[in-house]
Amino acid sequence: MKVTNAQKIFNAVGAQAVLTEQADLRQYLTGISTTFGYVLSDKNGNTFYTDSRYLEAASAALDGTDIKVKQFQSPLANLLKGYKEVAVPLSRTSYPEYKRLEDLGLKIVDSEKAFIDAMSIKQQYELDLIQKACNVTDDAFVALLGRIKEGMSENEVAAELEYLMRCYGASGTSFDTIVAFGKNSSVPHHETGDTKLKYGDIILIDFGCKVGGYCSDCTRTFLFGNDNKHGDFIKAYDHVLKAHMLVKEQVTDGITGREADAVARDYLKRYGLDKYFTHSLGHGIGVNIHEYPYLSPKGENVLKNGMVFSDEPGVYFEGDFGIRIEDTVTLKDGKVISLTNSNKNLTVI
Amino acid sequence: MKVTNAQKIFNAVGAQAVLTEQADLRQYLTGISTTFGYVLSDKNGNTFYTDSRYLEAASAALDGTDIKVKQFQSPLANLLKGYKEVAVPLSRTSYPEYKRLEDLGLKIVDSEKAFIDAMSIKQQYELDLIQKACNVTDDAFVALLGRIKEGMSENEVAAELEYLMRCYGASGTSFDTIVAFGKNSSVPHHETGDTKLKYGDIILIDFGCKVGGYCSDCTRTFLFGNDNKHGDFIKAYDHVLKAHMLVKEQVTDGITGREADAVARDYLKRYGLDKYFTHSLGHGIGVNIHEYPYLSPKGENVLKNGMVFSDEPGVYFEGDFGIRIEDTVTLKDGKVISLTNSNKNLTVI
Repeated sequence: MKVTNAQKIFNAVGAQAVLTEQADLRQYLTGISTTFGYVLSDKNGNTFYTDSRYLEAASAALDGTDIKVKQFQSPLANLLKGYKEVAVPLSRTSYPEYKRLEDLGLKIVDSEKAFIDAMSIKQQYELDLIQKACNVTDDAFVALLGRIKEGMSENEVAAELEYLMRCYGASGTSFDTIVAFGKNSSVPHHETGDTKLKYGDIILIDFGCKVGGYCSDCTRTFLFGNDNKHGDFIKAYDHVLKAHMLVKEQVTDGITGREADAVARDYLKRYGLDKYFTHSLGHGIGVNIHEYPYLSPKGENVLKNGMVFSDEPGVYFEGDFGIRIEDTVTLKDGKVISLTNSNKNLTVI
Repeated sequence: MKVTNAQKIFNAVGAQAVLTEQADLRQYLTGISTTFGYVLSDKNGNTFYTDSRYLEAASAALDGTDIKVKQFQSPLANLLKGYKEVAVPLSRTSYPEYKRLEDLGLKIVDSEKAFIDAMSIKQQYELDLIQKACNVTDDAFVALLGRIKEGMSENEVAAELEYLMRCYGASGTSFDTIVAFGKNSSVPHHETGDTKLKYGDIILIDFGCKVGGYCSDCTRTFLFGNDNKHGDFIKAYDHVLKAHMLVKEQVTDGITGREADAVARDYLKRYGLDKYFTHSLGHGIGVNIHEYPYLSPKGENVLKNGMVFSDEPGVYFEGDFGIRIEDTVTLKDGKVISLTNSNKNLTVI
């Protein structure tokens, strides 16, 4: 019988019962994507309660695992009879839900730390799904380069890229695709719009997809024709790429997110570029596009083997241009392994 | 000065201060899409606190409105100094957030009902955005029909449709596109997959997009070639379409969601089809794809002019086939107006 994450979380939490409703956590426990349901674990095992829409598919998907599937019958109190204690992720539990549990006479325990810790260290099947999602982003990006033409809008380029990721096997995007032309690249979270591509434009694309419920995340910055007006851009690009690569060389298990962030930030500081690096170096990636750990000046979380996160230094010169170079990476045997691998040397198309 | 929804909600709630953090509600108040921020309203006006990523764009977008834009400085307690009372949407507020507010000595009021009521009745600019999103779904669907070929997978058809919606002006999908071939159509929430299209297959497509933050929702069921084996399908299709049209003829302002649902359900019952109509007739549509009101056997909410909702009767014969016909509609002067309008007569491509 396959032991799922439901059992792992139950063991880690150590409460009489563990109840989980949140969509991302439910997906982490069951491995399947649903819009309604509860996972309940106790010493007798794990049960996924869902509605008639998912009953057949969930039963098939969880056959041979340690999770039983049953139809949910409201109210929720029915599921909790006989328990004295239940664990829920507190910061994801609304005040009225908390009160309802409390009114049932239950002692309430927080399951959140167990989820954060467990979800941050990926199992092999999770790494495989993230690698697949990263391969799709790489393949789609390479195919996209041949399709970018003068006069296309940012929205059209995003549409092409999302189409390609879908065709290569993604179930969808992992966040709203950012395509920024020219000076729009200087806004770190530019809203993709109707700006048209001109010869000589900088193009910044931040994109990712989902495969089997797991995310990828990648950013590339490149030139659409070289009009020889990009001396400052090319110099800054070189520094951002070196900062990105230094992170890959120097980050190892046991250091903090703050120390990892400092590898890139200190390097950029040597060239007076740190004040243009206005965001943090990276974030954990899994069923959520942003999750633990955080690689930032405030990140005291310790990086460990099996974690997956982004390495994404960037510099932004307001109203002029921006550069970000991002890969999804994992730590294995103390070394950074890149999961996205499309070309990062300055490209002119 | 343009009066925003922030002022409308503040007036409706009637608390000393109204604090809103949730992304969809924040978008409803400000009209812009952000991943971080708080809207705070009191008798002196409305302020949107956000971070450096959005400061410039938000200031430009909210210029000339009754919302000021300021940079957020943590902790949240800074914003709440001097108040005795604050309103938040309780069922969307986590237990630790509630406790933090309580620990500041604040009386906590629930803003949720004000949001639900206000958001369900659309203003003209909201109707215009939903109409645009519906036009994109219509145009994309018509263009898609010419691109569907034998041997394509469900994922490929979804990719084409999403690409077309993007090209026609959508910022993205409003939910995961459902494309179901053949017997997959009998699963109301089929997960779009690798099934290949064969001559004679039924095709069910449930799709929608977002324009300016507002959603559309549409379902069409049709045939890929007529192999003359679809007598039962054609008979059932006719009944589902009649149920769909009866709703448009008979639903008016002042009736309940339950009564609206019964228009379709009672009609299908006459032909023994009600037991295959396994979901509710419809749901409200706005910045969220599913919101108030609900048109279901349990829906006691009253339908009013200005509401936007789906009319989507369906029948599902397990392992055989399913049919769903859905339009996004609005109530105006007591009449149902269809906002999606692509052909619903049985189509064979």
